[in-house]
Amino acid sequence: MTDHAKEVEDANAAFYRCFETADLDGMQEIWLDDPEALCVHPGALPVRGTSAINRSWALIMANTPYIQFFLTDVEVSVRDEVASVTCTENVLTAGEIVEATFTGARAIATNVFCRTPEGWRLWIHHASPVLSGQHHDDD
Amino acid sequence: MTDHAKEVEDANAAFYRCFETADLDGMQEIWLDDPEALCVHPGALPVRGTSAINRSWALIMANTPYIQFFLTDVEVSVRDEVASVTCTENVLTAGEIVEATFTGARAIATNVFCRTPEGWRLWIHHASPVLSGQHHDDD
Repeated sequence: MTDHAKEVEDANAAFYRCFETADLDGMQEIWLDDPEALCVHPGALPVRGTSAINRSWALIMANTPYIQFFLTDVEVSVRDEVASVTCTENVLTAGEIVEATFTGARAIATNVFCRTPEGWRLWIHHASPVLSGQHHDDD
Repeated sequence: MTDHAKEVEDANAAFYRCFETADLDGMQEIWLDDPEALCVHPGALPVRGTSAINRSWALIMANTPYIQFFLTDVEVSVRDEVASVTCTENVLTAGEIVEATFTGARAIATNVFCRTPEGWRLWIHHASPVLSGQHHDDD
């Protein structure tokens, strides 16, 4: 794995860590400051621009008492100044009741990072629910 | 709109036109020839690499008697050699029966194109079903 690929994988891991720990400042830091940044939460309409994206995370974090990600199938692809990470988000969430009930879910994420003087920053996050077990990736 | 943005929007329109007309050769042409190209069909697991992606389109086209796209909220963002298009895919499909029944559906797509000597080529297509009308894009 190249240095760049490793940096991108670290940036991707930091993104999920910020979500898990409800670290809104850290989350803001991870995103590119760009009115054309794009965030698609699973099953939702797109959120465009850093300030709207920040507000969406604030709302989601405020309504997520517990969340934990187990990433699988993490694939990093670096093309010069831009890199993509695709991964399966195996998500464990818990409700706000005393005796916690845990729920598992699975989503597919594409995260596209841009290289900036400050490091790799998230330009696009697109997560989608997995509705079928079917896949054609039989290479 | 810059020349590059216009080129990217045209490439994006060509992608949907190939799907509508079941033009598999045209579809292959649109994609970057890259083992790291990525395609996420709505609700499905990722398909990676040009040959697996081509097979997935062949299968989908063979099983789609009729499909028509009305794209809304098309937003193009160009960053040097890479550009993204996000759009809402308003999809009309019809079954294989004589008296056709039409079904409407909506998906959100992120399409990332790379600039090559042959023109803009599709690197990533990620489409996700819209499960909620909620959005936070209130800027």
